[in-house]
Amino acid sequence: MNPVEMWKTVDGYSPLVSFLNTVSPISKEAMDFLDKSTTLLSIEKKKFLLKPGAVVTDFYFIIKGVIHGFIKEGDKQITTWINEEGEIVSSIRNLGTNKPCEEYLQALEDCVLIAIPIAITEEAFEVYPETNAVARRLWEDNYRGAEERAYLGRIPSAEKKYKKFIEKNPNLMNRIPLKYIASYLGMTVETLCRIRARQR
Amino acid sequence: MNPVEMWKTVDGYSPLVSFLNTVSPISKEAMDFLDKSTTLLSIEKKKFLLKPGAVVTDFYFIIKGVIHGFIKEGDKQITTWINEEGEIVSSIRNLGTNKPCEEYLQALEDCVLIAIPIAITEEAFEVYPETNAVARRLWEDNYRGAEERAYLGRIPSAEKKYKKFIEKNPNLMNRIPLKYIASYLGMTVETLCRIRARQR
Repeated sequence: MNPVEMWKTVDGYSPLVSFLNTVSPISKEAMDFLDKSTTLLSIEKKKFLLKPGAVVTDFYFIIKGVIHGFIKEGDKQITTWINEEGEIVSSIRNLGTNKPCEEYLQALEDCVLIAIPIAITEEAFEVYPETNAVARRLWEDNYRGAEERAYLGRIPSAEKKYKKFIEKNPNLMNRIPLKYIASYLGMTVETLCRIRARQR
Repeated sequence: MNPVEMWKTVDGYSPLVSFLNTVSPISKEAMDFLDKSTTLLSIEKKKFLLKPGAVVTDFYFIIKGVIHGFIKEGDKQITTWINEEGEIVSSIRNLGTNKPCEEYLQALEDCVLIAIPIAITEEAFEVYPETNAVARRLWEDNYRGAEERAYLGRIPSAEKKYKKFIEKNPNLMNRIPLKYIASYLGMTVETLCRIRARQR
């Protein structure tokens, strides 16, 4: 499928708008507004969506591909999250703070995204109040996910971390290089490989 | 101040309802509904608000005191969050999942809380649509906080972890036993003491 075909779903709206409408129903006017205020974006594998110092102006809905967020500590990259299709990503730690981005957002595959300017979401909340319920549910869901990641990072047993991870992300292990997953789980690639071999 | 005095602020509403109204304005009807649907709760230092296996039915707004969430790994307690006055806590990892609680919520001081049944929040979202904007902002804020905790748990440098922590929680260090903060930061009490001494 090429990006243009991905842009419209059977109901004539973008996959983003159709998705938001399933989270909590929104009016036709809100759907039209969101459709015309958001744009399709392709980004090649290994390219950066955001880098430290950038001003964060958009959310990104992943139509295709995998994005990870990481920080650099000296020479070391520390992956703090990995997201696939159907997720909305951005530099959430800086959301609404007006502080520049502190993390890297990088494509781990060729990605097709929909960019959602943060400013238009604010407009939507004012003009189409029903969109507040959509955002409430999405943030609740993402809050739970972030809480789970905060917990995962603190489990001392590498084995338990691995189990939690594959429960939540059954496909990622075969989709992206293990080094990113090892970094996310706070273990070496060798430890991750050893645990995988044991579990099979 | 005794709990009953804490219950009403100058506008005649509970501190919770007054707080929610500052997050995003809500109607008088919604304020009355929330006031009569929530209850004051005292819990002594060291007592548990939730334990693994419990059904999670409420959120808790902290009027006074400190609560932490932890998990047990063998003999070890791992603190995943610590919250003070003005925060809403619960077992967020299980929110909306119908799964029993997996963590301990424990008072680290004598606490006064307001219990908010999750069922009544759902009712409020339906009947008083303006409450969706309140929850959207609260979850956004909590999502950002959880993301920050997920990040904090993955910083390899103990010194940087400590700095991030005191930036965010300048008072907690003098308020609760260091062992909980060390656990939250994933370091030993000895390491935490050493870093503190160096920073002074």
